[in-house]
Amino acid sequence: MTYAPPLHTAAPIAGAAFRSAMAHLAAAVNIITTDGPHGRAGFTATAVCSVTDQPPTLLVCINRDSSAHGPVAGNASVCVNTLANGHEALSNAFGGKTAQAERFALANWTAGPSGAPMLDGATLAFDCKVSQTVSVGTHDILFCQVVHIRHPADPDVLVYFNRGYHPLGQPPAVVAGA
Amino acid sequence: MTYAPPLHTAAPIAGAAFRSAMAHLAAAVNIITTDGPHGRAGFTATAVCSVTDQPPTLLVCINRDSSAHGPVAGNASVCVNTLANGHEALSNAFGGKTAQAERFALANWTAGPSGAPMLDGATLAFDCKVSQTVSVGTHDILFCQVVHIRHPADPDVLVYFNRGYHPLGQPPAVVAGA
Repeated sequence: MTYAPPLHTAAPIAGAAFRSAMAHLAAAVNIITTDGPHGRAGFTATAVCSVTDQPPTLLVCINRDSSAHGPVAGNASVCVNTLANGHEALSNAFGGKTAQAERFALANWTAGPSGAPMLDGATLAFDCKVSQTVSVGTHDILFCQVVHIRHPADPDVLVYFNRGYHPLGQPPAVVAGA
Repeated sequence: MTYAPPLHTAAPIAGAAFRSAMAHLAAAVNIITTDGPHGRAGFTATAVCSVTDQPPTLLVCINRDSSAHGPVAGNASVCVNTLANGHEALSNAFGGKTAQAERFALANWTAGPSGAPMLDGATLAFDCKVSQTVSVGTHDILFCQVVHIRHPADPDVLVYFNRGYHPLGQPPAVVAGA
């Protein structure tokens, strides 16, 4: 395997170099939504992961400069909608500069228990209460306690890797387990 | 799309139901390593994501009951090794009950600046100092400030989805950007 020149400790690692490397950490694409007294908003996020099942909790990273940050922080509830094959344009709209109302007009939604919009056709929808927030640099990490789950019997998922979309939905290539 | 019966708010969501849904949140597979005064250890993790580039920081979730937890917490440094196509058996060994010494005997490693083992042939290797730890339920969330990055010019990556491995490395199916 050929490696790019290493980025050394001596100098601080530049943001651009970090982002370039992180582009190779493949991840599912999600649209995080909220609705309530602080408004309706949504944004695209790959920085989402499972934390613990006691109690069922996942985390979401959000830039505090994001237009969705105020509504998400104020409502303290979100729906994590994991995208499926075919949601590429929706991902781009929620990840770009499109006005919030125009983003939601691109798809059909159903209100979850918290009021946050659940995307019709999403691979997964986790309706959550934000139980704790930690700030690191430019971002808030939202710890989200799951109160409702909707998932299809036969899912496919949209993965982002190397600055492009890759749908996954075939049977596993190799079954896990030693 | 056919949905499985929804899991409702009225009753707490069971851990097994949460884990079953989370199996559909596709993610890159990583081996997290550490070495230092508190010992050498490593474990497989999909709960890894980017937090901010100011300063370059990622996060890793670790079960406090994991055999790697003591060494990781004590050394306060880790290497996040993102796995490539062909690393399926290595992932299973570091994710199972195999003794730590036997895990490391399965591959070749080079010490990074912190001393943590960098996996030869990994898609990415991020050598990090643990800058902050937050405990949620059974797990610790390690905020890891990146001090060294090694990544190949032409990467592929191993994705875990629906309880199986999926190698990704072809050119993007759809280029991102509205």
